[in-house]
Parts: sequence; C-alpha cells; structure tokens
Amino acid sequence: MRILVTGGAGMLGRKLAERLARDGELGGERISRLVLADLATPGAPEGAGPEVAAVACDLAAPGVAEKLLADRPEVVFHLAAVVSGEAETDFEKGYRVNLDGTRLLLDAIRADPGYRPRLVFASSIAVFGAPFPDVIGDDFHTAPLTSYGTQKAIGELLVSDYSRRGFLDGVAIRLPTICVRPGGPNRAASGFFSSIIREPLSGQVALLPVADDVRHTHASPRAAVGFFLRAATVEEGALRERRCLTMPGVSATVGEQLEALRRVAGDGAVSLVRREPDELVARIVAGWPQRVDAGRARELGFRAETSFEEIVRVHVEDELGGRIP
Amino acid sequence: MRILVTGGAGMLGRKLAERLARDGELGGERISRLVLADLATPGAPEGAGPEVAAVACDLAAPGVAEKLLADRPEVVFHLAAVVSGEAETDFEKGYRVNLDGTRLLLDAIRADPGYRPRLVFASSIAVFGAPFPDVIGDDFHTAPLTSYGTQKAIGELLVSDYSRRGFLDGVAIRLPTICVRPGGPNRAASGFFSSIIREPLSGQVALLPVADDVRHTHASPRAAVGFFLRAATVEEGALRERRCLTMPGVSATVGEQLEALRRVAGDGAVSLVRREPDELVARIVAGWPQRVDAGRARELGFRAETSFEEIVRVHVEDELGGRIP
Repeated sequence: MRILVTGGAGMLGRKLAERLARDGELGGERISRLVLADLATPGAPEGAGPEVAAVACDLAAPGVAEKLLADRPEVVFHLAAVVSGEAETDFEKGYRVNLDGTRLLLDAIRADPGYRPRLVFASSIAVFGAPFPDVIGDDFHTAPLTSYGTQKAIGELLVSDYSRRGFLDGVAIRLPTICVRPGGPNRAASGFFSSIIREPLSGQVALLPVADDVRHTHASPRAAVGFFLRAATVEEGALRERRCLTMPGVSATVGEQLEALRRVAGDGAVSLVRREPDELVARIVAGWPQRVDAGRARELGFRAETSFEEIVRVHVEDELGGRIP
Repeated sequence: MRILVTGGAGMLGRKLAERLARDGELGGERISRLVLADLATPGAPEGAGPEVAAVACDLAAPGVAEKLLADRPEVVFHLAAVVSGEAETDFEKGYRVNLDGTRLLLDAIRADPGYRPRLVFASSIAVFGAPFPDVIGDDFHTAPLTSYGTQKAIGELLVSDYSRRGFLDGVAIRLPTICVRPGGPNRAASGFFSSIIREPLSGQVALLPVADDVRHTHASPRAAVGFFLRAATVEEGALRERRCLTMPGVSATVGEQLEALRRVAGDGAVSLVRREPDELVARIVAGWPQRVDAGRARELGFRAETSFEEIVRVHVEDELGGRIP
C-alpha cells in the first residue's frame, strides 16, 4: 500500500507519519511507500517498514498534485492548510492554499481515470459558527464565522461531491481543537488552549487571552492520529452519502483545563498562567463550537479522550517521557 | 441607483428585469441604469424609467466581471448559473460557471476598495440533501446530493465570508422549485413540476416522470421576483451573521398539484398528463427537500403563495392573460 500525506511537516502530519512508519501497516495492509509533502521538506520518520520520501512542494501550484499522485497512492491524507489565524489575516493566501490547493488535489485525482483512492480530508469544527444549540448535532449547518472555517466547509462539499461522482472515496473529519500541541506556538487562534498547559508543565509562563469560562472541545494529538487512521479504514458503505464526520472530543472550560493541570502538576504549574486578554482571539474563539454530539463518528468507531485530565496525561506521556520536569 | 442582473436572459432574470423596469425604483430609490448580462444578449424589457443595457458575456472568463462592475452598481443580482440537470451531466461546465463564475464576480467586487454593493445570490433548496427531517429548519445542514446543490452551497459560503470580511453586503436566497415556469422546458431536473400544469392548460400533453406521492416545495415566478426585491432591500442588521435564507413555498405532492389543476381547469386538463417514469429524474428529485420551515425568511418579510391552487392561478394571470384557452 502506498500512502501520501500532504502537510507532512505540520504537527499532525509528522505525528501521523511517525505512526504509519512505526506500524508499517494500515488496516492490515503492509505500507510499501510513504510520501510526505509540504512547503518545507518534511522530516522522515524512523521505521523499519516503508520506503519514505519527503517532498518540498506547493500544492496550490498547477501540476504539483499530479506529480505527487503519479504512483497512485491508495490512501491520501490531505492535511496541508493555512491555519485559522493566518487565513483570517491573509485572505488571499488562505483561499489559495485551503481552497485552490484542495481543489487542485481533487481534480488531479479526478483526471486519472480508474484511480479512486480513499482521501481523508482534515476538516475542523471551525466549519460551525455561532449562535449554537447547547450541543451541536451531526445535522447542524456549517455557517462558519472565519475564512478558515469557510474554506474547510467548501473542502468538505467538494470531497462529498467528488466522492458521489465516483472520482474518489472521501472522508472529511472535523477535528476539534488539538490540545496539547507540542513545540512552539503556531498562528492558530486556538494556540493558547495548548500553551496554558504545555508551558507550565515545562516551568514556563503562559498567556491566557480569554476568560476562564470559555468552553471548547479538545482532543489530543494522539487521538487525532487515531481519527486519521480510522478515517482511512472505515468502510465506505457505512458512510452512506454523508462523508463529513464531526470528531468526538472533551468539552471543557478554560477553568476546567486549569483544574486538570492542577491535579496533574500542582498549584505551582497553574500559577504560571498569566491573564492577558486579546480581543481578536476572544472574538474568533467566541464564534467556535463549545460542545459537539459526534454521535455518528462514535458509532463508526472514532475515539477521543474522556476527560481533560486524560488529555494532560497523554501529553506528559507522549511529549515529556512520562514525567513532569 | 444602478443595478446589475447576471443571468438576465434566463426566465427569472427576465421577469426580474421586467419588474425593475416597470417599477422604475427599488426600495424607494429611482433606478437610473439597469444592466442585464448573460451568455446570449438578454432582451431589453419595456419601461419608461431606467436606461437599460443588455450585455452578452461569459462571467466565468477573467476580466468580464470587472467590466460589468465598472460603474459600481449599488445592487447586483447574481442569477447566472448552469441548471441542475446540466450541472449533473457536465461536471466541468457546472463548476466553471456556478463556482468559478461566482468567485470571479465576488473577487471583482473585492478588488474595488470602497465599493460594497448589496449582492443578492440566487441559491436553491438543492443545497439540502436527504435524509431529511419532516420539516427542514433554518439550521439544517447543507449536505447536497447534486453537483448543482454543491456549487450553490459553496456560493453561499463565499457570499457569507466575503460579507463578513466587509467586501460586499450579501444575501443568499434559497429558492424552492419555481413553478409554473412559462415557455419551453429547460434542462433542470425539476422541469416536469411545471410542465404537468403548463402544457395541459394549453391543451398539450405533459409527461410525468415520477410517482404521484412525490412531495416538493414550490413558489411561482411572481413570488420569486418578490423574493429578489425583498432580498435587495432587507436591512443588513436584520440578517446578523446569517446571510443565507431558505425561502418559503407551498409544499405539495404531485397528486395535490394535479388536484389543483383539476379545480382550476377541469378533468380534461388533468387527463392530458401521461405517466412516463424516468429513473434519473426520480433519483435526483428523491434527494430534494419536501418541506422547509423558512421561519427566518418569513420573519424578514419574504412571502410566497399559500396553496398550489394559488400558484396555478398566478400562472393563468401572468402568462395566459387571465383565461384558460
């Protein structure tokens, strides 16, 4: 089995690639070749199994997708995207990468008759926009309040239509905020949800730009990788005509996040969180979903953590070698 | 006030243009200039008031939208589209006209700083796809089952995002099936809903491709023109962040349509309807909405007929000079 991961240098792309290289198989099939593509050359993960190729390329440039697909990978993970904060500040770049890049990828698949890969599209719960019901059901409309959410919602529509027309076999997964993100901050408006846990766990100060009662839905990077693997292997028949799935997650307020941090790492860690309100971030986050039902995804076997404390402990295990410094 | 109508040679575009030319004003403002654009030169409607220009052009070609917008019309009615049946049989043409054409129009508006017209986008209840609840609420998701519905749903997302970003002041109206359409059949899969009324009223045989219990939502061309005028004048503040409105209509089965025809024109008219099942049409129509709530649109003053018999009588008044031949 050949696999292509776009956005392979991003945090999730890297973790997905590491997992695929380590497992050496997907859905019981041996992985022979793993291609990682991104603007910057992705790092090649270690693993005895698959041949790994890392490609630096711009998916939004004509002809690039055709080259990446030349060996007809059976599974395409499409993660490449401009993140929410940047798509909001750079309108044209967001549309170019998130809409045009996605469409070029889908059209390159369509242009190859007889080739019909499973395509897993990384969507986001940013496709939803306020006002919200108490819990967002699987049939709630996509009325995004950011350009990023708009671009993801359009990507979902394209994946569904191209699948229905038989050009590919798509699954779009709406990721909740991924938390705790390792490494440095990125330009996602949701970055602080991670930094208020990650930095204190390393003895660093973290800034909190929103109020303690802000509620949001989270899943760990480990859970997200699990979503991608499940999306790659879920039976097409089980999806019926509805290929866009809201992923499960843990709904927690910022206050509840900090309480979980306190339980795992003590008062000292929590005292490192400094409140510094940021209106732009607060406004963007206020338009984001607080709770999702995700009943369909759960039925189809997608699993997330069950408490925010579990999310903190997953971070300690996966990123800090199991111990708090 | 200057007004641009794209799709000005289509049935609704023509009726809208006739109404605007006849009224000579919109929302209390005198119309000085009315530009009608379409692939074929639109016919210029009669009316003492506005200067009328009819332009033959391809909106999906680069640079065309800029020319149409050169005199900065305060209101743009964007009706130009490939219809549902053709968008399903000609994938590339549908995306080129319905997606790329719309985006080029929006981007041409965006490219002119300080210009922020009211843009009325003709969307469709084809943005919804089965399975449906009994009544489709205003928050029901857009999970279309046709390429046409997909393209309209994407257009809605773009109109919303471009409005939110301040580039334009958009309103997308989801039209139900327009019935009774005058003139000959077009390539819309919904055409038979009209022909089973229109042809018998003129003593002609009509073919019915679906079962009598097929239920669907309808509004007359007169009501549709009313939707467009209301959409052009509704206060922006009343829309809040939700600029996509499902229009009201009459929910009726094919059997109820035929009973309305019987009440207006007698048994002889109904006997001219011949059942000739068509699987493609039946399949497309089966994925379409049966009943919509349209509560928001009604609150905002959008009005449709209240019975299918009224729809038949509107056709007799507007197209047959008030009498059945």
